[in-house]
Amino acid sequence: MQSHGKEQGEYLYQAVERHVLDMIESGSLGLGDRLPSLRILSSKTGLSLSTVNQAYLELERKGVIESRPRSGFFVSRKSRRLPRTEGPPPGNQGGPRPVTRSGLIRTVLECLGRPDAVPLGVIAPDADLLPLRDVTKITTAILRDHTREALDYAPVSGVPALRTQVALRCMEHSMSVIPEDTLITAGCLEALYISLRSVCRTGDTVLIQSPTYYCFLQLLENLGLRAVEVPSHPDRGVSPADIARALKTFDIAACVLAPNYNNPDASLTPDSAKREIVGLLARRDIPLIEDDVVTDLHFGSRRPGTYKQFDRDGRVLLCSSFSKTISGGFRVGWLLPGRYREKAWEIKATTNVHSSVLPQMAVAEYLRQGRMERHLRKLRATVEQQMDTMHLHLTRYFPRGTRVTHPEGGLVLWLELPEKVNAVDLFFEARDASIGIAPGAIFSTQDKFSNYIRLSCGTIWSEQIRQGLETLGNMARRMAD
Amino acid sequence: MQSHGKEQGEYLYQAVERHVLDMIESGSLGLGDRLPSLRILSSKTGLSLSTVNQAYLELERKGVIESRPRSGFFVSRKSRRLPRTEGPPPGNQGGPRPVTRSGLIRTVLECLGRPDAVPLGVIAPDADLLPLRDVTKITTAILRDHTREALDYAPVSGVPALRTQVALRCMEHSMSVIPEDTLITAGCLEALYISLRSVCRTGDTVLIQSPTYYCFLQLLENLGLRAVEVPSHPDRGVSPADIARALKTFDIAACVLAPNYNNPDASLTPDSAKREIVGLLARRDIPLIEDDVVTDLHFGSRRPGTYKQFDRDGRVLLCSSFSKTISGGFRVGWLLPGRYREKAWEIKATTNVHSSVLPQMAVAEYLRQGRMERHLRKLRATVEQQMDTMHLHLTRYFPRGTRVTHPEGGLVLWLELPEKVNAVDLFFEARDASIGIAPGAIFSTQDKFSNYIRLSCGTIWSEQIRQGLETLGNMARRMAD
Repeated sequence: MQSHGKEQGEYLYQAVERHVLDMIESGSLGLGDRLPSLRILSSKTGLSLSTVNQAYLELERKGVIESRPRSGFFVSRKSRRLPRTEGPPPGNQGGPRPVTRSGLIRTVLECLGRPDAVPLGVIAPDADLLPLRDVTKITTAILRDHTREALDYAPVSGVPALRTQVALRCMEHSMSVIPEDTLITAGCLEALYISLRSVCRTGDTVLIQSPTYYCFLQLLENLGLRAVEVPSHPDRGVSPADIARALKTFDIAACVLAPNYNNPDASLTPDSAKREIVGLLARRDIPLIEDDVVTDLHFGSRRPGTYKQFDRDGRVLLCSSFSKTISGGFRVGWLLPGRYREKAWEIKATTNVHSSVLPQMAVAEYLRQGRMERHLRKLRATVEQQMDTMHLHLTRYFPRGTRVTHPEGGLVLWLELPEKVNAVDLFFEARDASIGIAPGAIFSTQDKFSNYIRLSCGTIWSEQIRQGLETLGNMARRMAD
Repeated sequence: MQSHGKEQGEYLYQAVERHVLDMIESGSLGLGDRLPSLRILSSKTGLSLSTVNQAYLELERKGVIESRPRSGFFVSRKSRRLPRTEGPPPGNQGGPRPVTRSGLIRTVLECLGRPDAVPLGVIAPDADLLPLRDVTKITTAILRDHTREALDYAPVSGVPALRTQVALRCMEHSMSVIPEDTLITAGCLEALYISLRSVCRTGDTVLIQSPTYYCFLQLLENLGLRAVEVPSHPDRGVSPADIARALKTFDIAACVLAPNYNNPDASLTPDSAKREIVGLLARRDIPLIEDDVVTDLHFGSRRPGTYKQFDRDGRVLLCSSFSKTISGGFRVGWLLPGRYREKAWEIKATTNVHSSVLPQMAVAEYLRQGRMERHLRKLRATVEQQMDTMHLHLTRYFPRGTRVTHPEGGLVLWLELPEKVNAVDLFFEARDASIGIAPGAIFSTQDKFSNYIRLSCGTIWSEQIRQGLETLGNMARRMAD
C-alpha cells in the first residue's frame, strides 16, 4: 500500500477501500476475481483485521464486492453499480407546449465544446476509438485516384456508391431498402431536420419521448413546432398505450422516437412494442421519424430492431449517421424518407445542394472494403468496458440515493441524483471547475429531470476523467446534504 | 484548305467562311489580326476571287471581321458579338406571387446533371480550371498531419482558421469584417437558406431581381415565401427607384439581390446604386441578402463592390462560397450574417451542426498559403476567353434577331432569341439531343423570358461544345422561321 497511503482526512479503512478500487480499475482485479483474504491483506498492509474488514463491508454495501459463504470476497459482477433508475418522474402530461429551452441548451453546448473541459458531456467516441488510420489511408487514395470526382459537384441524393453501401447495411438490419430509397445527409441531425420539414408545418405538434435528446428540442423550437411528451422508461422505452392515449388527446402531426439506447436514458423499446406503435400510427396516417444513430453500439450480440423494419407503407423516416462510428467531422449521415422522398429531396436540394463529396466517397469505400464490422465489434467492447469503469467510480464518488441507468448499448449514462440536488446548479458549478456535463433540464420541455445529469462514456478512461468524476461527486454530495 | 473541304450541302463561300472561323478559334488568327488578302486566299484555295469576297462580306455582316479602307480585312475586336440584350421584357409587376416553378426547375436540373449531356447549362468552371493539384496536395497533408482535427467535430460557426481567412478576404474587398462576423456554411445556397430563415417567416414577401437564379426561386417556394420582382437590366442591374417603388407598394420582409454578374443576365448594379439601395432599406429596417458568389470572376482589373461594404448597421447578409473557384464538391461557403448572427447560428446548429471539417481546413490552408490570387487571375482570363469564343460561335450559328449579354464577369451568357422561339420547347428538343441548357422561364415567377436561354461558359472549349452550339443554333433557327 506504499503508493496508496492514507490521504488527509481519510479513515484508515477508506484507504483500504481505495486500494481495492484502484486494483479493480487497473485490471489487477477483474470482475468475478477473488479478493485477498482479510488475513493476508491485514498482514500485507500492517493494518488491523477489523480495519480491513470494515473496508470490505463498506465495499460490499456499495455493491463493488460480494461475499460468498466459505469462499471469501469477490469483485461483484452485477451489483457493483448504483441502483437502477426506476423510470421517469411523473411529469404533468399537459397540453402541447412551445419549445423554449434553447437558451440553456446553447449555454451547455458552449461549455461542452470547450477543449479544456473534462469531456463528460460530449457524446462522441474518443478519436482513438475511431478508425482514423484506415479512413485517412482511404481518403488519401481517393484524392489521388479520383481527384475530379472527389472535388466536383454530385447528385442531390448523394454519391451513388455510398447510397449502395447504406442500402446494403439497411438490408442486413432487416429493412427492405434499395439505393434509391436513401438520401445522404450532412449527419443525422440534418436527416431529422429534413424529416421534420418534410412532414410538419410551423405550429404543428410533434410527439416526442421524455427525456429526449436536447438537439431535437432545439430543432423543434427552431422550426416553430410544439411538443407533446410521452414518458420514456429506462428499462422498456416508450409504451404503445401511452402513445395511443396521446394520439387520442392531441392533434399529432408526427412522432420523433429513438428505437434504441435513447439519448439520454439509454432506453430500448422492445421490437414488439415498435411493431405495435408503427401499426397505431399507420392507421392514423401519422409519420414516425426515428433516430437510429447509436443502434450500432449494442453491447449484446444481437442488433435490436428499428421501427422502419415494421413499416409497410413508407410512413417511417429513419435517420442515422456515421458520426459516432467513423467520423463526426465528416458530417455523413443518411435518411430513409419512405413515401416523403420527393419532398425530402427538395429540402436537401434547397438547403445545401448535396453533402460534401470527399467524405461521402471515403465512407463508401470504407464500407465497401468490409472494414466496418470488425471495427464496430472493437468499438462496442471498448465502450461497454468504459461504461463499466464509469459505473464503478459513480459507486465510489456519488452520494447515497444516486441511481443510474444500466444501458445495453449507446454512449451515455443517465444519473438520477438525490432530490435536493439541482442539476443546473451542478452544471454551472462543474463548468467553473472545467468539467462538462449535461443537466437533465435540457432533455425535456417540462420542468422535469431537475435532479438528473447525463454523462458520456465515449472518452477513453484517464486520470483526468477520474478526477473530474470525483470532483463532480463531491459537488453532488455537498448539494445533497 | 485540304482539311476544311466543302461539306455536303455547303456553298463554296461557306467553306471559306468556316475556314476563317476555324483559324480564329484555333488562335492562328487573333483578335485584331489582319486576314489574308482576297488575292492570296484565292490563289491558295483555288477558289475564285468572288467566292472568297462573298465569304469575307458574310463574315463582315456577322461582325466577325471588319474592313478598314486601304488596309484589308481584320478580325473584329468589338463587333464580333451578337447585339446586346436591351433589358428585361416589360413583365407585369403584379402583386406578390407564390413561387411555383419547382416542377420545371427540377426537370431542368435533372437534365443538366446528366454526365452525357453537352454541358451548356451547368454553371461551374470545368475541373481543369480549378486548382485540383494544389488542393489535393494540401488536403492530403492535412489528413497526414492533423488527422484528429480533420475527422473530429468542430464549432458550429466553422473551423477558426477558415473564418480568419474569410474575414481577411472580406477586408481586402472593403468590408469591415472580423472572424467572429463569419459563419461557415455548406456552400452559398446554404448561406442563402440560413439568411432567409433568419429574417423571414412562412408567407412573407421577398423582393428579388428579375431574372434571378432559379435556385433562389426553388428555395423561396420551399420555404413558403412569396416573391415580388423588380427588373434587372443587363447593363445597369437593379435601380434604386424601382426598389423604392416596390417598397412603397408591397410589404417586403427582405430583399435578395446579386451585386454583380447576376445569374443569368450578368448584370452589375453600380456601386453608387448599391449604396443608395442599402440606405433605402436601412431606413425601412428591411434586411438585404446578397449573393456574392461570382464577383471574384471579374474580367476587369477592379473587383466591383458589394452591398455589404455600404452596410452601417448589420442589415446586409452576404452569402458566398468557394464552389466556383476552388471546389463545388467541397461544399464550403460562408455567410456574413450581420445583426442576425445569433439566429443564423441557431439555424446552422439545428440544420447540420457544422460543415464538413476536412474541406474547411483544406480551403483555409489553400488561402493561407496565398495561392488564391494567382489562381483567380488565370481563371478569370480563361473564362473571359471562353466567353469570347462562345460569342463568336453564337454569331455563327444563331438566327438573325438573336441578342446576347456582353458580361464583364461571371460564368454565363443570357441569350434573347427571336420572339417566335419558345425556350422551354428548345430545352426539351436540346435535351433529346443530349444538350443541356437552362430555359428563361425558370428564372422568374412571371411568364417572362419565354424566348431566353442561359448558356454556361465554364466548360473548356471543345469540338463537343462547338457541335452542341451548332445543333442548338440550328434548332433555334428552325423555331424562328
